[in-house]
Amino acid sequence: MTHSTRPRAADNGTADAPGGAPADAPDLDLHELAQQLRVDSVRAAAEAGSGHPTSSMSAAELMAVLIARQLRYDFSEPQHPGNDHLVLSKGHASPLLYAAYKAVGAITDEELLTFRKRHSRLEGHPTPRLPWVDVATGSLGQGLPIAVGMALAEARLAEQPYRTWVVCGDSEMAEGSVTEALEQAGYDRLDRLTLIVDVNRLGQRGPTRYGWDLDAYARRLEAHDWHTVQVDGHDPDAVDAAYREAVAVTDRPTAILARTVKGQGVAAVADREGKHGKPLPDAHSAVAELGGRRNLRVTVRTPDAPPAQAAPAASGDAEPDGSAPRLPVYERGARVATRDAFGEALVAVGEAHPEVVVLDGEVGDSTRTRAFAEAHPERFFECYIAEQQLVAAAVGMQTRGWVPYASSFGAFLERGYEFVRMAAVSRARINLVGSHAGVAIGEDGPSQMALEDLAAFRAVHGSTVLHPCDAHQTARLVATMAESDWLGGVRYLRTLRGATPVIYDPEERFPIGGSKVLRSSDIDEVTLVAAGVTVPEALLAAEALAADGIAARVVDLYSVKPVDTATLREAAARTGRLLTVEDHHPEGGLGDAVLDAFTDGRHALPRLRRLAVRELPGSATPDEQLHDAGIDAEAIAGAARELIASD
Amino acid sequence: MTHSTRPRAADNGTADAPGGAPADAPDLDLHELAQQLRVDSVRAAAEAGSGHPTSSMSAAELMAVLIARQLRYDFSEPQHPGNDHLVLSKGHASPLLYAAYKAVGAITDEELLTFRKRHSRLEGHPTPRLPWVDVATGSLGQGLPIAVGMALAEARLAEQPYRTWVVCGDSEMAEGSVTEALEQAGYDRLDRLTLIVDVNRLGQRGPTRYGWDLDAYARRLEAHDWHTVQVDGHDPDAVDAAYREAVAVTDRPTAILARTVKGQGVAAVADREGKHGKPLPDAHSAVAELGGRRNLRVTVRTPDAPPAQAAPAASGDAEPDGSAPRLPVYERGARVATRDAFGEALVAVGEAHPEVVVLDGEVGDSTRTRAFAEAHPERFFECYIAEQQLVAAAVGMQTRGWVPYASSFGAFLERGYEFVRMAAVSRARINLVGSHAGVAIGEDGPSQMALEDLAAFRAVHGSTVLHPCDAHQTARLVATMAESDWLGGVRYLRTLRGATPVIYDPEERFPIGGSKVLRSSDIDEVTLVAAGVTVPEALLAAEALAADGIAARVVDLYSVKPVDTATLREAAARTGRLLTVEDHHPEGGLGDAVLDAFTDGRHALPRLRRLAVRELPGSATPDEQLHDAGIDAEAIAGAARELIASD
Repeated sequence: MTHSTRPRAADNGTADAPGGAPADAPDLDLHELAQQLRVDSVRAAAEAGSGHPTSSMSAAELMAVLIARQLRYDFSEPQHPGNDHLVLSKGHASPLLYAAYKAVGAITDEELLTFRKRHSRLEGHPTPRLPWVDVATGSLGQGLPIAVGMALAEARLAEQPYRTWVVCGDSEMAEGSVTEALEQAGYDRLDRLTLIVDVNRLGQRGPTRYGWDLDAYARRLEAHDWHTVQVDGHDPDAVDAAYREAVAVTDRPTAILARTVKGQGVAAVADREGKHGKPLPDAHSAVAELGGRRNLRVTVRTPDAPPAQAAPAASGDAEPDGSAPRLPVYERGARVATRDAFGEALVAVGEAHPEVVVLDGEVGDSTRTRAFAEAHPERFFECYIAEQQLVAAAVGMQTRGWVPYASSFGAFLERGYEFVRMAAVSRARINLVGSHAGVAIGEDGPSQMALEDLAAFRAVHGSTVLHPCDAHQTARLVATMAESDWLGGVRYLRTLRGATPVIYDPEERFPIGGSKVLRSSDIDEVTLVAAGVTVPEALLAAEALAADGIAARVVDLYSVKPVDTATLREAAARTGRLLTVEDHHPEGGLGDAVLDAFTDGRHALPRLRRLAVRELPGSATPDEQLHDAGIDAEAIAGAARELIASD
Repeated sequence: MTHSTRPRAADNGTADAPGGAPADAPDLDLHELAQQLRVDSVRAAAEAGSGHPTSSMSAAELMAVLIARQLRYDFSEPQHPGNDHLVLSKGHASPLLYAAYKAVGAITDEELLTFRKRHSRLEGHPTPRLPWVDVATGSLGQGLPIAVGMALAEARLAEQPYRTWVVCGDSEMAEGSVTEALEQAGYDRLDRLTLIVDVNRLGQRGPTRYGWDLDAYARRLEAHDWHTVQVDGHDPDAVDAAYREAVAVTDRPTAILARTVKGQGVAAVADREGKHGKPLPDAHSAVAELGGRRNLRVTVRTPDAPPAQAAPAASGDAEPDGSAPRLPVYERGARVATRDAFGEALVAVGEAHPEVVVLDGEVGDSTRTRAFAEAHPERFFECYIAEQQLVAAAVGMQTRGWVPYASSFGAFLERGYEFVRMAAVSRARINLVGSHAGVAIGEDGPSQMALEDLAAFRAVHGSTVLHPCDAHQTARLVATMAESDWLGGVRYLRTLRGATPVIYDPEERFPIGGSKVLRSSDIDEVTLVAAGVTVPEALLAAEALAADGIAARVVDLYSVKPVDTATLREAAARTGRLLTVEDHHPEGGLGDAVLDAFTDGRHALPRLRRLAVRELPGSATPDEQLHDAGIDAEAIAGAARELIASD
C-alpha cells in the first residue's frame, strides 16, 4: 500500500541523468575546495572558542564534491520547489556546512566568524534560522528519518523532481530511528534519496562500535534493500564517482559509505582520541598546515523553472472544493467516540485541503485514520510500527508545504518524543493525534494508556495541546489544525477510545486558546474544570451537587495549551474555588495548565484541588477505571463538597 | 570495550548442552498442549469480552514447546538466580502466556477466567503483578531491548547461567528499538539470548510490511551477526529442533523465524484480516473445532541450586567495603560542575555498592561516567548512541537485582521516554542521569539543551526527580539513588554542564522530598525558589534585593518530585509571595512542582510568579543565555521587586 502507485512527475532528464557530468565549474579543484572548507571550519571554531572542527574536517571532500558537482539549489530562492534538500544530520559538524555556505556565496566570511555568538544565525548546530536549513539537527539519528519524509513527498506527491542528500556520522548509525528510516526508504524504493555516511571511526568518547568496518554498515544497509558504495572519503574523484553512481541507481536508495579520518589534514588531531568537540589546539598553524586560506567560489547548479502547477498541491483524484471542509454532523445526545469524529473529520479536511497528508503507525484501524486511507490513498503514508519515523516523516513533509497529521495511540507517540522536541527547534508545523487517552480505555491496561502525554507535549516549545470531549468539537479542532498558515508549531490532539455524548451543535466554534462554560449561575460556589472524558463526568457531578443545593460552574477546557486565562480567572473570581479533573497523571496536565492562568504574580490564586490518576491502574471496565482513579462524577461531586466544606 | 572480558560463570553443562534432550515429560503431546493453549486463550478472551486470542493462537506451538522442552524455571521461586527469563514482547498475546501459566500449574483455571477483570492479576497486557513476569509489555518493540539487558547481565556478571527467551511479533520488528537491541546483542555475542519471532503476517490494520517473507527478517538479523533459523511455527517437532539449534549455537544470539497463521486452528478467523484484538465470534464452536478443553500439565525443568555466592553480587576486583561510599570532598566556594561531582561520586558509590552498574550512551566523556568505566570496567556497559536500548538495558538489569545508572544528555534521554513510561508500569527501579540541562550549556544551542525533561520525567508514575545545584549535594543524591531497597521507581537526576559554586558542606544531608532554606529572616517579603543553576542566581538576587532593603528567602528545591510541601507552605505563609525560577520551559517543571504543595484544596495559594525559559534559545555564552531567558540574578531581582510592588 505504501509503494508508489502514482506515476512520477516528469523528470527533465538532466538532473538525474545516469553518470551526468557536472553542469559547471568543471575546472574547480575539488581538493583545494575541500581544504578551504577545512580551513574555514578551523577558523570558525577558533574564533568561537568551541565547536566541532575535527568532525567537520573528516567530511570536507564529501561536502565539497556534493556542492560542486551534484547539489541543485537556488540559494536566492530557498522555497524553489525544484531545490534539492541537504540535511546535515551530524549537526555538530555545522562549521563545515557554514563553510560550504560561504563557498557558494550565501554568507560572507565576516558572518562565518560570528559562529556560535549571541544573535548569530550560525548556531552551534544548524537551525532554520538560516533559510537554507530545512530542519534543526544536532540530536543524532534524526536527519535520515526526516529526509525520508522529504523523499517520500517527492516520490509520491511532487510535481517537480528533487533529490534529498543526507550527511550523517557513523556513531548515529546505532540509533534505532536510523534503521526505521532505512527500512521505510528501502521498502518504498526512494531512489532520489542518498545517504552519505562519514565513517571517521571516532565518536564522542572513543572508537565507534564498528570502527572502519564499512562492510558492517553495508550489510545492514543492503539487508534493508539499499544500494551501497564504499569509497575513500578523502579522494575527490572517488567521491565524485560514488555520487554519480548513486544518481544512476533508479530502483532503490543509495548509501555512500566513506572511510574518512577525523581531523583529516592536521597531524595534531587527525585520527586521535580526545579531540572531539574542541577547537584545534593551534588554529594558526593548523591553517598553515592545510595550505592557508583560500577563497574559491562554487557556482551551485540551480533547478529548472518549476512547472505551472508548483508543489505543494495535492495530486489525488478529488479536486479541492475551495470551501470550508464539510465536517461530519452528529445527533445531539448520541454517543460518539472522539477518535471516530477525528477519522471522519479528517476525510472532510483532506477533501477541502489538498495539502493535507496523513501518516499512520500501523494502528489506523484504532486511531481511525483508515477512513482517510480509503478516501485519499495517494496522501496516506503507512509508517508501520515505527513512531520515530512517523513523527520524522511529518517533519520532513512539512518542509515541503504539506500539512501532516501523524497518528498513533497517545502512549506510543511518546516513542517519538525527542523528535517532537526537535520539531519545535525546527520551527516545524505538524499535527500529532494521539488516541486511547487515559484510564478510560478500560481493560487493555496501563501499557496502552496515555497518562503523561499532556505533560510531555505541553512542555514542548510553542506547542498547542487540544483535548476535545465531543464529536463536533473534535471535528472543528481537526479542521483548525489544517490551518498551518497561522497556526504554527507542534499541535497535539488527544482523542478518546470510548464514546462520549454529543453536547455541542455542529455550528459551534472552538478557537485555539478558548474554553466553554457549560453551566454557570450567579451563585456558583465552585468551578469544575474538565476536558475530554471528564467533561461528561463533571456535568453529572454538577447535577448531583445541584440536587444538594450546591451550584457548580463547569468549564470544558478543550484547549489545554494555550489556556483560556480570562475565563478561568473570571470563574475563580466568581466562585472562589476550582476543582480540576483529568484522565492523566497529576503532573503537568490539565491542573497545571489551569494554574498557569494565575501565575503572573498579579492575580491571587484561587483555592484549588486537582483530581487526577494517582495510582497505577490495572485492567477494568472504563467506568470502573474512572471510579478507581477517583475522576468520575461521584468523585468529583465528593471532592467539590469537601472543597467547599474546608473553607 | 563492551565485549565480555570476564570468564563466564561455570556452566553445569546440562542446561545448555547442544541438542540436549528435554529433562522430562518426553511423552507429552506437544500438538495437544498447543491446542490446549489455544482453547484456553479463546476461553479467557471470551469470558473477558475482549483481548487478543488470534495473536495468541499463532504462537501456541512456539509457547508449548518452549515451556515443555526448554524453559528452566522454578515457579515456586521466581527469584531463583538460575531461572530463565521469558519475555512476551507481544504483550497483547497475554492469553497465551496465562494459558501457559495454567498449563505449568502456576494459576488455576478459575483464575485464568478472571482475565482483564477488575483486580485480577491477569491484566490485558502482562505486568509484574504476576511474580513470573519480570517486566510489563504491551508497548511493542520493548521486549527484546529489555531482554538484552537481562542477557548482558548474564554474560558479564551472573554467577549462575540462565537463558533469556523473547517472543515477539512480526509487526514490532519495524521498531528501531528492536534494531538497537539486535545490534547490541549481536556485537556482544549474547548466545544465551533467543528471539522467537511469531511471523503471522497480519498486524493491527492489515498485512505487515514483509508478510511471510522470512528471508527479509533473516537478512536483517544476520547483518547484525545473529544466527537465524526458519521454521514452520505450527510443527512442534520443527520448533523443538529449532530451539535445540538455538541452544547449540554458542558464539552468537539466535532468532527463530516462525511462519505462523494468525488465528490458527479456527477457520472463521485463521489468516483473516479484521480479526485483530477481538474475542472469537463463536467461542463455543471454536473450542469444539480445536478439539475441546484439555487439562494437560507441564512439568517445567527447574534450574540447578544456586552456587554459594548467588547473584547479584559484583564480581570486580574491588571488594565492597561494607560501609557508606567515600564520596568526593570539594572546597567550599570552589566552582565544580555537578556532572563532575556525579562522575566522581559514581565511582565511590560503585565501590561501596557492588550491585551498581553503569550504562552509557556514547557520551561518557561529557556525562562523566567515563570515570566509572575506568574504575569498574566490569560493571560498565557501553550502549553507544541508542538511548532506547540504554534505558531498556537498565530495566532488564534491575530485574536481576542490579542497580543501574543510565546516563546521557538529558535531552537525549528523552529519546527513551516511552521506555521510561513503561519502566514505571514494570515497577522498575532505575536511575537515569541527564546532563547538559537547560540554556546554561551555552553555545551548543537548543538541540543539546534539556528544557522539558523535568516535565516529562515528573509525569512518569512513581518517579523521583532530583536537580542538585552543587557538588556535595550531587554526590549525596547519587549515593541515595543506590539505595534501591527503599527508593522505588524511576529516579531522574539532572546535572549541569558548567561549574557552580560549592555551597554545602560535605556532611550535609539531602533527603528525598526535602529542600534547603539557604537564606531567611523574620521579615522576608518574598521567597525565591530555585534548583540547579538558578540557585546561585537566586542567592545573588537576594543579595541585590537586600541592598535595596528587601529581605528575600531562598529555597533550594533540589527534590523536584516529591516536593517539600511543608517548607514551601511555611515560606508562603511567612513571605506571602513565591517566585520560582528554573532553567526549563514553564510547563511541568519546578514552578508546577511548587504549586503542587498548594493544591490539596485546603491551603490558600500564595501569590506566585514563575520565571522560566519561554523563548527558543540560540547560541550564546552561558551567562548570556541565562540573561536572555530572563532567569539570571538580575531578572530574578527585578521580578521579585515587581511581585512585591504589584500587591
